[in-house]
Amino acid sequence: MRYGLYYWPEIQGRGEFVRLALEEGGADYVDVARRGSGMAAMSRLLDGAGIKRAPYAPPILKAGKLVVAQTALILHYLGPRLRLVPRSEADRLWAHQLQLTVTDFVKEIHDTHHPISTALYYEDQRPAAKRYSAEFWQNRVPKFLGYFEEVLENSGGPHVFGRKVSYVDLSLFQIVEGLRYAFPRRMKRFESKVPRLIGLRDRVARRPRIAAYLASDRRIPFNESGIFRHYKELDG
Amino acid sequence: MRYGLYYWPEIQGRGEFVRLALEEGGADYVDVARRGSGMAAMSRLLDGAGIKRAPYAPPILKAGKLVVAQTALILHYLGPRLRLVPRSEADRLWAHQLQLTVTDFVKEIHDTHHPISTALYYEDQRPAAKRYSAEFWQNRVPKFLGYFEEVLENSGGPHVFGRKVSYVDLSLFQIVEGLRYAFPRRMKRFESKVPRLIGLRDRVARRPRIAAYLASDRRIPFNESGIFRHYKELDG
Repeated sequence: MRYGLYYWPEIQGRGEFVRLALEEGGADYVDVARRGSGMAAMSRLLDGAGIKRAPYAPPILKAGKLVVAQTALILHYLGPRLRLVPRSEADRLWAHQLQLTVTDFVKEIHDTHHPISTALYYEDQRPAAKRYSAEFWQNRVPKFLGYFEEVLENSGGPHVFGRKVSYVDLSLFQIVEGLRYAFPRRMKRFESKVPRLIGLRDRVARRPRIAAYLASDRRIPFNESGIFRHYKELDG
Repeated sequence: MRYGLYYWPEIQGRGEFVRLALEEGGADYVDVARRGSGMAAMSRLLDGAGIKRAPYAPPILKAGKLVVAQTALILHYLGPRLRLVPRSEADRLWAHQLQLTVTDFVKEIHDTHHPISTALYYEDQRPAAKRYSAEFWQNRVPKFLGYFEEVLENSGGPHVFGRKVSYVDLSLFQIVEGLRYAFPRRMKRFESKVPRLIGLRDRVARRPRIAAYLASDRRIPFNESGIFRHYKELDG
């Protein structure tokens, strides 16, 4: 099966959680919108041209005739096919539940720089962003990352499912990488509170396929158009 | 199977999307935290007492030994069991994808009154809430509700899957009800743009089990502690 991933070509964004799974799973895939007329193809999908069930937004996965959107759902779908989740229903539900909590956290991370509206520039909501970011680091980061730290403690580690890696682990790697990029000073102070999560990040980074991907030009660098943006004034 | 729903006892909140499905599905369920020592039982679940896989937040469903959290995932799990989604994998994925888009919208609705932080009172973020709400009605409501209107157009209506009701339809009913409560003036002006969605709302409200539920004291009234809150100054 050759998969088609449709996502904005200039950012990691939410698509990156899918890219990491496709790469670790050794999938045959095309990052469609980064090719020739790929953006036009993505627009047609979003407009519902030729399909009855147009998705709301990217990322979108095409698998044969099937079109799946919503990051966590794409991973739920790909998980068993790429052997990135255990087989039992209970385990698949647990992985999906955790990934949906990652999704919630990603939205809050995004809102650190866009608390008022995505239709406005960052520069037009900077005071709100500063206030949001301070609250975010005081309350939300400890709650979310503390939760994932506990999950790793309860699983026995080093991964969410113990010995075997899952797509959730790849997403937690991305969360740590992104927070380090966006908030280097705050994250540096915080990391000692979540040693298992940092250990997981290191393990994922050393996996041969992930390491090869990160070193390739398929990995788009972090930048100030994505979810994780570095603005010094938000970094405390 | 007797299900246990664990959710904050004083609000509709995210739990309401699950309650509507349990009611329409004629499920045998207990709204645990609304009973005697139910809040203590919910706290124990969140603390991970007696279970290895503690959820991050309510709503939480207990089905025998299984513990499932995240609203959309609970509905994905319950859907086939309560006959509130067609059987094929493609249909189940589509329903789940739509429900995850409902989830995204619900978070943005919540943020109309809490754009900066859930740790602060509304009164301490009122100017940001006013600005957020204006942008929300200008850009986000037309985009989200316009999307669901198109889904209903493409399905042939009156429901998301055509003739047969699904849990997604119940959630769309709740969205319309909630927006009418929170933003009566703005919603009144907007409704003519989404006639299919309003028609769907009316149909769901007339379903015997839903009508009986809405008239019962199991339906908690909307109030200013939930997702949908009425603050006159946010209503344009």
